Amino acid sequence: MTGTVGIALVGSKFMGTAHSNAWQQVTRFFDPPLTPVLHSVVARDAEAVAGFGRRWGWQHASTDLAAVLADPHVGLVDICTPNDVHREQAVAALEAGKHVACEKPLAGTLADARVMAKAAQAAPGRTFVWFSYRRVPAIALARTLVSQGRIGEIRHVRAVYAQQWGGPAAPAVWRFDASVAGSGAHGDLNAHIVDAVRFVTGEELVEVSGAVTKTFVPSHTVDDAVLFLARLSGGGIATFEATRLATGYHNHHGFEIHGELGALRFWFDEMPYLDYYDATAEPLVRGWTRIEVSDGDAGHPWVGSWWPAGHPIGYEHTFTNQAADILTVLGGDEPVAPLPDFAEALVVQAVLATALESARRGSPVEVGELLLAD
Amino acid sequence: MTGTVGIALVGSKFMGTAHSNAWQQVTRFFDPPLTPVLHSVVARDAEAVAGFGRRWGWQHASTDLAAVLADPHVGLVDICTPNDVHREQAVAALEAGKHVACEKPLAGTLADARVMAKAAQAAPGRTFVWFSYRRVPAIALARTLVSQGRIGEIRHVRAVYAQQWGGPAAPAVWRFDASVAGSGAHGDLNAHIVDAVRFVTGEELVEVSGAVTKTFVPSHTVDDAVLFLARLSGGGIATFEATRLATGYHNHHGFEIHGELGALRFWFDEMPYLDYYDATAEPLVRGWTRIEVSDGDAGHPWVGSWWPAGHPIGYEHTFTNQAADILTVLGGDEPVAPLPDFAEALVVQAVLATALESARRGSPVEVGELLLAD
Amino acid sequence: MTGTVGIALVGSKFMGTAHSNAWQQVTRFFDPPLTPVLHSVVARDAEAVAGFGRRWGWQHASTDLAAVLADPHVGLVDICTPNDVHREQAVAALEAGKHVACEKPLAGTLADARVMAKAAQAAPGRTFVWFSYRRVPAIALARTLVSQGRIGEIRHVRAVYAQQWGGPAAPAVWRFDASVAGSGAHGDLNAHIVDAVRFVTGEELVEVSGAVTKTFVPSHTVDDAVLFLARLSGGGIATFEATRLATGYHNHHGFEIHGELGALRFWFDEMPYLDYYDATAEPLVRGWTRIEVSDGDAGHPWVGSWWPAGHPIGYEHTFTNQAADILTVLGGDEPVAPLPDFAEALVVQAVLATALESARRGSPVEVGELLLAD
Amino acid sequence: MTGTVGIALVGSKFMGTAHSNAWQQVTRFFDPPLTPVLHSVVARDAEAVAGFGRRWGWQHASTDLAAVLADPHVGLVDICTPNDVHREQAVAALEAGKHVACEKPLAGTLADARVMAKAAQAAPGRTFVWFSYRRVPAIALARTLVSQGRIGEIRHVRAVYAQQWGGPAAPAVWRFDASVAGSGAHGDLNAHIVDAVRFVTGEELVEVSGAVTKTFVPSHTVDDAVLFLARLSGGGIATFEATRLATGYHNHHGFEIHGELGALRFWFDEMPYLDYYDATAEPLVRGWTRIEVSDGDAGHPWVGSWWPAGHPIGYEHTFTNQAADILTVLGGDEPVAPLPDFAEALVVQAVLATALESARRGSPVEVGELLLAD
Repeated sequence: MTGTVGIALVGSKFMGTAHSNAWQQVTRFFDPPLTPVLHSVVARDAEAVAGFGRRWGWQHASTDLAAVLADPHVGLVDICTPNDVHREQAVAALEAGKHVACEKPLAGTLADARVMAKAAQAAPGRTFVWFSYRRVPAIALARTLVSQGRIGEIRHVRAVYAQQWGGPAAPAVWRFDASVAGSGAHGDLNAHIVDAVRFVTGEELVEVSGAVTKTFVPSHTVDDAVLFLARLSGGGIATFEATRLATGYHNHHGFEIHGELGALRFWFDEMPYLDYYDATAEPLVRGWTRIEVSDGDAGHPWVGSWWPAGHPIGYEHTFTNQAADILTVLGGDEPVAPLPDFAEALVVQAVLATALESARRGSPVEVGELLLAD
Repeated sequence: MTGTVGIALVGSKFMGTAHSNAWQQVTRFFDPPLTPVLHSVVARDAEAVAGFGRRWGWQHASTDLAAVLADPHVGLVDICTPNDVHREQAVAALEAGKHVACEKPLAGTLADARVMAKAAQAAPGRTFVWFSYRRVPAIALARTLVSQGRIGEIRHVRAVYAQQWGGPAAPAVWRFDASVAGSGAHGDLNAHIVDAVRFVTGEELVEVSGAVTKTFVPSHTVDDAVLFLARLSGGGIATFEATRLATGYHNHHGFEIHGELGALRFWFDEMPYLDYYDATAEPLVRGWTRIEVSDGDAGHPWVGSWWPAGHPIGYEHTFTNQAADILTVLGGDEPVAPLPDFAEALVVQAVLATALESARRGSPVEVGELLLAD
Repeated sequence: MTGTVGIALVGSKFMGTAHSNAWQQVTRFFDPPLTPVLHSVVARDAEAVAGFGRRWGWQHASTDLAAVLADPHVGLVDICTPNDVHREQAVAALEAGKHVACEKPLAGTLADARVMAKAAQAAPGRTFVWFSYRRVPAIALARTLVSQGRIGEIRHVRAVYAQQWGGPAAPAVWRFDASVAGSGAHGDLNAHIVDAVRFVTGEELVEVSGAVTKTFVPSHTVDDAVLFLARLSGGGIATFEATRLATGYHNHHGFEIHGELGALRFWFDEMPYLDYYDATAEPLVRGWTRIEVSDGDAGHPWVGSWWPAGHPIGYEHTFTNQAADILTVLGGDEPVAPLPDFAEALVVQAVLATALESARRGSPVEVGELLLAD
Repeated sequence: MTGTVGIALVGSKFMGTAHSNAWQQVTRFFDPPLTPVLHSVVARDAEAVAGFGRRWGWQHASTDLAAVLADPHVGLVDICTPNDVHREQAVAALEAGKHVACEKPLAGTLADARVMAKAAQAAPGRTFVWFSYRRVPAIALARTLVSQGRIGEIRHVRAVYAQQWGGPAAPAVWRFDASVAGSGAHGDLNAHIVDAVRFVTGEELVEVSGAVTKTFVPSHTVDDAVLFLARLSGGGIATFEATRLATGYHNHHGFEIHGELGALRFWFDEMPYLDYYDATAEPLVRGWTRIEVSDGDAGHPWVGSWWPAGHPIGYEHTFTNQAADILTVLGGDEPVAPLPDFAEALVVQAVLATALESARRGSPVEVGELLLAD
């Protein structure tokens, strides 16, 4: 199958830039079955969106989402707006018959997320959520190694997402405002590592066993940090921590996973590397093997489309990798690694809501309780 | 002041070896105000203890603790036995008017620990607990930097103690038996990192906000892993994790501490190093500074008594450093860094008990509730 | 000044891809005074170059370099071909009045390089050489720190460029053929680290004091590895090593530089990081500071045009950074960091030739001897 | 065989301390076939040596080496004096029928070393040289892996020994005085890494292909740094660098070795670890494996006599390990790893002399030329 799909981008800030770049770059480095047409970018400020559109090669710039949704040349709506408008925009796009790719977290609230997942179920379009760290090659390799049974039954997970930008000196942005963002570090950062742990382990978090939320900066109406403990569907136990006040860390996130037969360790500070411990290896030379996940010939995901081994890709490439996989799926083929849809993102949202509920109640809460509530 | 103090060592296994070595080495590398006399080693097996005594230079080997306690040449009783007999032995030694240095955790149960702390209060002898990781130079330097205000108000602590030896294939030792050990990874490993965090931050854990205990190996009657969340007296929040089933880690423990003005990071896997982030440094060159804590001339603790900078000490030296500090205190001088006594170890024990209680209740529990109960 | 400059790319392999990407991306992330127009790509295979041109957005694809050089819409000729044709192509472009940006090494032989540098001197066009690793932010920051006097007088340099792809199993490519490449690891890899050391230190290599060349694979007519020792203009001494048979290293290159007042360390395996040791810092906390060179607000070069701090750029961005600086220079402004021209690349070429001459003679050779010969 | 051997230690400074400690500790942690008796310590200052002897448990302290050599209770003479007196002391001891263990380098000059090796050949006693870094477990494991053929034919060696203490501010010690030390960084530091490379690879340096010596500090009469290139007996090539002015490094030494089938990497800054790259491993998970060489059960050398895996030993333990191996050899058994004798240390000395000769001549010099000269 060959052909094109018209893209409408909603939002033109940090994520709008990352997504525009991905749609521009994807056909340079990949050969997806569908070619994206950068049809329209939509944002509130007419002048700004026009400039953004020119810079990034969008054919049209608009402030009228409804009009764009009515355009039959648009096949996929890519949502990069603050969390509180995801629901309205995504549902409208789905009802207009479009495919929808939405930034994470799926929504600011579990209720919104539930509405979105239902709309997705009822609509003809495919849905995607930009848990783009799944497309870090080292993280996807971790998933492959787990799925091959290399580390056996999982006992421990330690997941952290620590940033430092959100202290008292940070400018007042929507991410600190509960009415827009829904939550703070939790939805922004824990969302990523909850998704990553699910993706890599293939397991679900079944219970949040305890949680702490903390707002350090008085003017913030969202959490600045959320810690929680969880039980996994396979019997393992896990710690999660998200914070925007971890002095020293610009963007430190990752996980350590210990299984019966081995272990895995990934930190985004050293993006190209996955550490793998094979407990079944010969004792004399057993240890943590640092795999530079940059070698297409070795079977490392996505990197064969980029540069030779040892020539690293960066942050933005995770979006391009995801754009390639979205186009692959829309073209009827298999993505390099599974893509999350609204139904799956709802599960992440339920985990996040369960953590907050656990903190509120001061007791363990089953994820199913919130996920299945209606 | 100069003089000698007779030591009686109780126990002759792993810790007995480490302590014997410390008492032998301390006067080679330090000049403490009191010289230890290796008077007696006491253990249950007459033949084994005799051999141990000869190897390690103890003047006497005995199976009769009471007789040893009655000997006026013994001034300090050093207890290296399993947790369940700490109370009886320590109380007897205190009642005999001796100083007591006891291995950690103070006891197998909070009740025992409370009895011991009370006995200590009533007795003339000084008490010490072998939280020997306090005497890792990098950990003591971390404490110094915090106490100098370098990282400001503490917001986050992340403490982990992960080992891998305790899986199904491990031999059945007393450490897996609740009737002897009291707890498993919790008392053995969380005890260390709870003490280290208190020592470094100068703060107390005031609440355990959630906890999970897990026994992976059916034949074990103790926990194999315990995770918990805590609130600190200064307003920060913390995660603690101890496990004996973290495949890949022989003896991985340490902490990351984020404050308002800086951060600290230590992992025992790289024992000589403390990482320090000074958030007030010039932005152009700001980053994590890896301090090789091996330079006596730079003011690094203890190392000036050992080798030139860059020539590392190892695990055993933490015990020798502690022996030096104990002798210094008994001689009337100030130790290089504060030594924990029974009262302080009782606080650690109360934290551990609070974590178990939080897991049992499925709710947050204040440490004071258990500490102050009688 | 605003306006455009037409680019003609010569070559369409690995470097052709990297350069095409740079010319496409540069106006998305930077606002250079001149906008590049991707006018023509030139290569030998008509069909292949047409496909390449379509994929990368070149307006024209051609097999006729002379015709392209005759086109007045072309302002800059970007040469990405094998080393043996650099001279002919560059001289033709210069004589046609174009600016020329040439891949490194400047040529396969010192004689060719000398001709090119002379042609550059005589022509109106500006010349540039793609020593693109200068535009790794960490390397440019190293240069800044040296130029600020932070490490004082330089005593030691240790530079290595080690790859592993060039063993007996590698396919026979032009890089192993002396008649095309001129040299092997030496021109390919030592060229980079010689330039990087000159760039960072601001010093010249004045003597090659000893050198070893080695061809491990019998079918290769170039060196597989070249080691050499050098004296620097400031009195320091240096080791250089380039090899394509360093098992374990995909693309390991970098340097350690020790000065009177401090030291610097960079390895491309961990591209975002520069390690800086400030010997004048307070002894208690002195150590190697790992600077994550990703923070535009901190003054780190180029990265402010890309993503927020902690979101790494990769290999390809060094080319885009260079494209931005070339356009800046052509537009009459100052580049973020100095750009090498043909005259400067001739110096690198003379150093490389001096090393080979030193190996041939079995004696020290002054760089000036070859550089100044005619 | 059981029994004792009387030790006479000559010298009471840094190395005297390290050796005294080794002789004291060896029977605590090992069960050698011979038990050392700390018979006599000999040094020039009567009062100082008496104090040293008391502290370290030597039975006698003396200023009269001849008298000590005449004592039939002394079986092994352990020489820790400056390089210029090694010859006289060692020859006297050998002629007195003693075994001799001498600090490295064997002598200050090749001529002295040759005399010593000849004396050793003629005497009944065994000789040993304290290349104690051979007894770092990670280094000995590297040797084992090479000897098992795991990395195949060796192509590249990169060896560095960098310290920073020897700048203008350092006190004037014998190590800066050519008449006492013979050489500076070269004999002190290159001696170690030349021996380590020979030990690990099992190969000889057959040619020094180029060398640079440098004295940065005017008051020093020895070299402050020596760099050299070498060819190995197996066809590989190598770089060596020793310096006392590498700002930032207290005691940074180690090597990287690349073979046909794999590679090894060791740096003393992270003493417990050996990095091993197995190029024959499955491509998907191939990488550098960091082996924590602390696990006696895994077959790691010496560590089983010390502490459980993950509980590091330090600098001093390399001496104790060597003491154990010396006693093992004297008792008629096989050491854990080969011990260098005077004949082997003469080879190291010849390599060092060859490097200086290569620097002097400005040309390559075969090691055999100097080694075989008489």
